[in-house]
Amino acid sequence: MSSGELKADSNRIIKIIASVSSPREFESPYIREADAVEIRLDLMTEPVGDRLSRLRASFTGPIILTLRSSDEGGAFAGGTTGFWERVSPYLPDADMVDLEIRFRDHAPRCRNLKKTVVASCHRNEMLTAGELENLITELRSFGDIPKIAVQPQTRDDLLTLLSVCSGCQHEVIMSVTGTVFRYARPLLSLFGSLYTYCYIDSPTSPGQYSLREMQLLAYLLTPGFVDPWFEGRPVRSGDASAFEERAKKYREFSG
Amino acid sequence: MSSGELKADSNRIIKIIASVSSPREFESPYIREADAVEIRLDLMTEPVGDRLSRLRASFTGPIILTLRSSDEGGAFAGGTTGFWERVSPYLPDADMVDLEIRFRDHAPRCRNLKKTVVASCHRNEMLTAGELENLITELRSFGDIPKIAVQPQTRDDLLTLLSVCSGCQHEVIMSVTGTVFRYARPLLSLFGSLYTYCYIDSPTSPGQYSLREMQLLAYLLTPGFVDPWFEGRPVRSGDASAFEERAKKYREFSG
Repeated sequence: MSSGELKADSNRIIKIIASVSSPREFESPYIREADAVEIRLDLMTEPVGDRLSRLRASFTGPIILTLRSSDEGGAFAGGTTGFWERVSPYLPDADMVDLEIRFRDHAPRCRNLKKTVVASCHRNEMLTAGELENLITELRSFGDIPKIAVQPQTRDDLLTLLSVCSGCQHEVIMSVTGTVFRYARPLLSLFGSLYTYCYIDSPTSPGQYSLREMQLLAYLLTPGFVDPWFEGRPVRSGDASAFEERAKKYREFSG
Repeated sequence: MSSGELKADSNRIIKIIASVSSPREFESPYIREADAVEIRLDLMTEPVGDRLSRLRASFTGPIILTLRSSDEGGAFAGGTTGFWERVSPYLPDADMVDLEIRFRDHAPRCRNLKKTVVASCHRNEMLTAGELENLITELRSFGDIPKIAVQPQTRDDLLTLLSVCSGCQHEVIMSVTGTVFRYARPLLSLFGSLYTYCYIDSPTSPGQYSLREMQLLAYLLTPGFVDPWFEGRPVRSGDASAFEERAKKYREFSG
């Protein structure tokens, strides 16, 4: 199965954000394979110039602007005013803005500009189910899509995280900090997280998967369906090209 | 990372049983990459001959004999006496015997022969947490390792399954029937299931992953650890050979 076919697969649950830390990555052929792109402005040392406009012109998914603070795992050490100065020049080419709680005062003007607000919180510790739910409520009070990353310490913590994520009635992005439970990243997508963050050239967060790794996971962890052309055998096992061939025949037959 | 290195990786959580349905598969080079082998006697149409003895001589992991009944997804339609006639010739080359509840009367003699009893139950429906726990108790009453495969219908069912599996105080194998939630198979290993069943040449159960697919999943879903030689970057992303090199240096340094 080619990556293009994978991206188009309507059965796929895991949706990938390519989190990019250099304007050079805007031109990577991999970026088109992502469902969305996060521009990590706090990590960009080279000038962006008109490269973001060119990405905007060619990329059809959402583009998210993120200026991650040093308190939450990023490289931006400035305050509220500095935040706006860094982010606002790029707003015309973006669909969403990531706002940590400390930058929540910018939410109304982002919304006035018709930008979706990703309200985010990153913690190097685990929270209880109740604390997670309260945090989601707080984030939703100023943003459209809450994004929470916490650090499970045990399998029970991970179950709590999956369960809270699965129970969300609205869109949510959930992830983990730290490397030990990095495998929670694809799992959270299976339990309702809207996206998972991946990298193209270099990780923007410890434990992050590369886009290619996550594509493999997205393919392997896609729900199966019974293919009547294969005598009830599972179609998503074994050779992917044979699957495509059978799936085409099946669509012709059933269409 | 070679498959040999993957098999030896002490961090790996997902342990793989190669479920084989033909004696020809005994000679497959892939079989050595599995942690255990299940001989699906009910699916073998060719004579086994001395091929199982040769496998026994070369394979270091456990060998499990399984004669799956037609009521539980297999091809054996016989009764208790027929079961013993089919299974007993191969016992000298096996470590474990899979016994469904209907064949539980054979448990004492399997144990007398120092064979571990996998007490199994396969259902094309979902059970509640309480029913699953009762079933585990029933299976443990005659076997050493309960093996349960049920069919989740919703994400909540899957959470129930992961949670019951994770809470087991003793060894347990948990899996799913059906293709839709096939991705529960690797997930259950992450939450305590001792093994996951995979195929080499052809699936022995709908939705089963191939050994190669599961090896990829086992690699990608292995917990990470912080590698001080890589400035806190996650080690399990990107190039695997570089990881191995760094990990070796790290072990030398810390050992």
